[in-house]
Amino acid sequence: MIIVMNNGANEEQIDGVVKKIKEFGLEANISRGTERTVIGAIGDERKLDQELIDALPGVEQSMHIVKPYKIVAREWHKQDSIVDIMGIKLGGNQVQIIAGPCSVETQPQMDAAAQYVHEAGCRLMRGGAFKPRTSPYAFQGHGEEGLTMFRKAAERYNLPMVTELMDARQLETFMKHDVDVIQIGTRSMQNFDLLKEVGRINKPVILKRGMSATISEWLMAAEYIAAGGNHNIIFCERGIRTFETYYRNVLDVTAIPVLKKETHLPVIVDPSHAGGKAWMVPALSRAAIAAGADGLLVEMHPTPCEAWCDADQALTPQELKDLMGTLGMIANAIGRTL
Amino acid sequence: MIIVMNNGANEEQIDGVVKKIKEFGLEANISRGTERTVIGAIGDERKLDQELIDALPGVEQSMHIVKPYKIVAREWHKQDSIVDIMGIKLGGNQVQIIAGPCSVETQPQMDAAAQYVHEAGCRLMRGGAFKPRTSPYAFQGHGEEGLTMFRKAAERYNLPMVTELMDARQLETFMKHDVDVIQIGTRSMQNFDLLKEVGRINKPVILKRGMSATISEWLMAAEYIAAGGNHNIIFCERGIRTFETYYRNVLDVTAIPVLKKETHLPVIVDPSHAGGKAWMVPALSRAAIAAGADGLLVEMHPTPCEAWCDADQALTPQELKDLMGTLGMIANAIGRTL
Amino acid sequence: MIIVMNNGANEEQIDGVVKKIKEFGLEANISRGTERTVIGAIGDERKLDQELIDALPGVEQSMHIVKPYKIVAREWHKQDSIVDIMGIKLGGNQVQIIAGPCSVETQPQMDAAAQYVHEAGCRLMRGGAFKPRTSPYAFQGHGEEGLTMFRKAAERYNLPMVTELMDARQLETFMKHDVDVIQIGTRSMQNFDLLKEVGRINKPVILKRGMSATISEWLMAAEYIAAGGNHNIIFCERGIRTFETYYRNVLDVTAIPVLKKETHLPVIVDPSHAGGKAWMVPALSRAAIAAGADGLLVEMHPTPCEAWCDADQALTPQELKDLMGTLGMIANAIGRTL
Amino acid sequence: MIIVMNNGANEEQIDGVVKKIKEFGLEANISRGTERTVIGAIGDERKLDQELIDALPGVEQSMHIVKPYKIVAREWHKQDSIVDIMGIKLGGNQVQIIAGPCSVETQPQMDAAAQYVHEAGCRLMRGGAFKPRTSPYAFQGHGEEGLTMFRKAAERYNLPMVTELMDARQLETFMKHDVDVIQIGTRSMQNFDLLKEVGRINKPVILKRGMSATISEWLMAAEYIAAGGNHNIIFCERGIRTFETYYRNVLDVTAIPVLKKETHLPVIVDPSHAGGKAWMVPALSRAAIAAGADGLLVEMHPTPCEAWCDADQALTPQELKDLMGTLGMIANAIGRTL
Repeated sequence: MIIVMNNGANEEQIDGVVKKIKEFGLEANISRGTERTVIGAIGDERKLDQELIDALPGVEQSMHIVKPYKIVAREWHKQDSIVDIMGIKLGGNQVQIIAGPCSVETQPQMDAAAQYVHEAGCRLMRGGAFKPRTSPYAFQGHGEEGLTMFRKAAERYNLPMVTELMDARQLETFMKHDVDVIQIGTRSMQNFDLLKEVGRINKPVILKRGMSATISEWLMAAEYIAAGGNHNIIFCERGIRTFETYYRNVLDVTAIPVLKKETHLPVIVDPSHAGGKAWMVPALSRAAIAAGADGLLVEMHPTPCEAWCDADQALTPQELKDLMGTLGMIANAIGRTL
Repeated sequence: MIIVMNNGANEEQIDGVVKKIKEFGLEANISRGTERTVIGAIGDERKLDQELIDALPGVEQSMHIVKPYKIVAREWHKQDSIVDIMGIKLGGNQVQIIAGPCSVETQPQMDAAAQYVHEAGCRLMRGGAFKPRTSPYAFQGHGEEGLTMFRKAAERYNLPMVTELMDARQLETFMKHDVDVIQIGTRSMQNFDLLKEVGRINKPVILKRGMSATISEWLMAAEYIAAGGNHNIIFCERGIRTFETYYRNVLDVTAIPVLKKETHLPVIVDPSHAGGKAWMVPALSRAAIAAGADGLLVEMHPTPCEAWCDADQALTPQELKDLMGTLGMIANAIGRTL
Repeated sequence: MIIVMNNGANEEQIDGVVKKIKEFGLEANISRGTERTVIGAIGDERKLDQELIDALPGVEQSMHIVKPYKIVAREWHKQDSIVDIMGIKLGGNQVQIIAGPCSVETQPQMDAAAQYVHEAGCRLMRGGAFKPRTSPYAFQGHGEEGLTMFRKAAERYNLPMVTELMDARQLETFMKHDVDVIQIGTRSMQNFDLLKEVGRINKPVILKRGMSATISEWLMAAEYIAAGGNHNIIFCERGIRTFETYYRNVLDVTAIPVLKKETHLPVIVDPSHAGGKAWMVPALSRAAIAAGADGLLVEMHPTPCEAWCDADQALTPQELKDLMGTLGMIANAIGRTL
Repeated sequence: MIIVMNNGANEEQIDGVVKKIKEFGLEANISRGTERTVIGAIGDERKLDQELIDALPGVEQSMHIVKPYKIVAREWHKQDSIVDIMGIKLGGNQVQIIAGPCSVETQPQMDAAAQYVHEAGCRLMRGGAFKPRTSPYAFQGHGEEGLTMFRKAAERYNLPMVTELMDARQLETFMKHDVDVIQIGTRSMQNFDLLKEVGRINKPVILKRGMSATISEWLMAAEYIAAGGNHNIIFCERGIRTFETYYRNVLDVTAIPVLKKETHLPVIVDPSHAGGKAWMVPALSRAAIAAGADGLLVEMHPTPCEAWCDADQALTPQELKDLMGTLGMIANAIGRTL
């Protein structure tokens, strides 16, 4: 850690900082510049609390020089991690498209959806049984019954099921239904108790980015899961909140190469929630794969105009099929397969 | 709801929208302008799903004209609601300052804090036993033991205790310790399952604004609590996330008059988390009260330089006392008391 | 325009709004709903001033239903516009890559840069003679002398020159040197006097997006240029400002399909300023082309480590060459050429 | 400057950084930590170009430790600067309220406005003759004729006139009319050529914050003016752009104490543009003064409902008078006068 003293800092204040550094078991290196004295803390700086240092008299600012995340960092694990989902590899050379409706509505809807997902060439299926809704008066999902419908539809095509967990109390139900991939939604990215729970089990977890989470906070959220023992983590960029009002969120395509540099774990993109409109999905999907994403999480509904939620952002089955064709060519252009 | 058709929309598409409006039990009013046809949906538009309308062919955009929140809206409840906390009125003419440390550390620290809170003239005390921390390796709070220490310190001065609930599974513990005010933190503002739980009990709830939550989302989060039957809700503005990096968050002072207009419920401000540095707290506190806030949630620590968390943002006991003096004069300037 | 009255609005207030609408030469359509009265203004609503309507007693809010831009709107000009730059077509099937250094430094630097740009297969060259710098103490560009050096280097390979205009008083100099494409920088997007000036001449203009400009403001800035008579406008997305601090800006890839829908004019992307680091440029460039951009504006320097500005974001000549190879394949994947 | 090498950096790369530091005339201090080597550059680091250092092989990141601004910094000029405007002191103990209409419309409107400004107890008057408008089709201001009308109205009450300069070519006209205070608008904050021009004259300048400018960029914009020799600079916070859509901008009240700490120059606030609605102005004005602002720039119109621009944000004469009463009491509460 680097501690910059303000330009009127006296010797007593400098000694105060050095003493605090030593209390934490680190060594101090003092460098007296022309305008400022700078103190370097040598040793495992993760032990040092930045707020405590900042609170000391005479300190102007302090900066960590090592990253606060460890298990998820590529720095300590150079090769790409591949998450295995029922034999399907996510994070390798093959790009994976996870498709399906926003929410589980009826058995026929799920049956049709599964068939279309399979026919389009996708190998995993998504669908929500527990739904986070802005309004308490909106449809909140079928709950456990939805998981049953989902499983019945998905198993016909051997599609692993991907679905969102909102509350630690539902985890037992998820395990009972043997959900294949647990999704942590954008509003739960910093639900630390929930992260600890999915860290204790042995299931792949898709960790969506909080709507205004920094890259660093997102990596730390993953570190929560990893610290519990579960390293099967997949990052999912889904758009961030900005000042722009034309679209719901801004897909942060830069996050893809940045995450690939910072972590060894796979990175996928949700182009449906990012834009919020079905007509934006193809362009965003192509951009994501071109930028290096390992996969997509796409909304498709057998009949979007009748969807119970997010009707305006779901692709039709034909649109999904068309998209898959283009994505295959983009993947090839960068040396990958679909 | 107003539905604007795009300028090439044909009669069949207009009929499709009218049909859908009627399916939901509303009436349609068609207005053919020079460049666009506009359809008004007459009736209880909360029944209409905007996404479904937007997904219909020929629709350019749609807009709700009534607010989605009802119980918390001032439109339906003109007079100010006052939340009674052990006989202390929050939301009335008297401004309330809730002070205390970021986290419960030790019994002597809490005892000293309680004494200073009381001596400064504050009538409620804050302190965290369950702490949301960005890093899994940071101190996570003493948990239930912290509640015990807090109670012991607070009851000596008859200070109601305000503390954060992070997980629905801890609610029983909170009830057992008879926590006086339950705080829902910024990361939990849209933890809908948690909101439902605190909606079922009869305890005042401080609902902090999500770090990038809109006013509308925040009101809807309160509506979740209110819909469960608990109307003792206090909004707490604590700074929003922006592009500015000099300070941790931007205190959104405009939210104060806006909330007072939109809802009948009390509004308080957390100046400590907003700025992130103790030296900013007095100016932000004065601004909040001057703008019409009903109270503050302020961090004070007996010895900030030794605090276990947020050391750089806690006031000293003397700083709190000084602040109280100025706030009293500001309150008087706008016809209130402290 | 739709005017929503608040729920206590009386007849006198409704009459006031109707009267104001008629003063502007439009007709009023009154729709009395269950909770609100809504008034539609029928006619050319661009004549109506929204702020004036909002200021009337009883008005809750008002909304325009037609777009404020006209000349640049695809609604009134369905086919793609192609900007012709010395015979090179921008906005057609062929994707154009404009490359070159951040700033004009020396004649040898520009000569080498022009050669590398040409050898990589790019058909246009960029370089700054007048530089907008955050600090008054930083290198401000060579000014007119820079234009001379740039021309000398570029003409050897018949590369049209693209360079930034910062002040209307420099326009004469730009015309004297016959600059081929005038770039309006991000900080000048709403320099309305400057926009009016470039609207009066007959040169292609690259209009960069302001760092926190909405899509609508950006289109209106282009409308300023178009209203003067110059329709040779090229939009350039260069990243927007958000809360994220890992990278300088967030490349708003969603803006590409959105602009292609809203305007008939070409759209290019500056991946260098978006990310701010050379290692991010390839991924962002691929994403931009995959999303449908008509071209790129990329920084390349013969020896980045010695560049006088933006040294950390310039590609090396070899990196540019490699990038061109991949971009050709991405372009083919979506049916375009490079 | 502190340069952090990445954890695989070798000796040759470290030497490369040291060599570059010495080229700029500074000394290097090498500190080898457990995970990273950190190099400190000792000397006048303003000479060092951060981008050049970041571009060197093996560098992970670099950080400036001294502020890039000098003349405007409080670090080098401890006491408050007071700007004298025709004998009226801005920046001292007395708070100054500058009031008037958005734009100069007619002589009677300006005459009435001047009278109301004077009667409310304000000592300076605002009004726009050259107007930055988002749409090319909107009223652009009366230009020079407006300055004449403004002067005629203002001189009757000895009110110094404050008006916006948008283009360097208009400066001569401003000098001819002896405009008392030149306002640089939010869209011009980084119009560096314009800043240089007002730096060369001897008139007070109000520098509005760019709508998404950081504190540091804002201070650097002031440094541009100061570097030209004009130190009569007044900062004006006018709200920043965020994700919130309920109000036009978010008044950044935290910027007030932060600027007062970073610079010796006066800081005022524009509550009218911040909120965008007249009903928000009183609360925001009170908050600004309570937080320590040296003055306000407020819109008042004799008859807001007929204003040619920003009709919905102007106070009525009576509202201004009422506001002045409360502000006087707030000023007193913090030991100032109005």
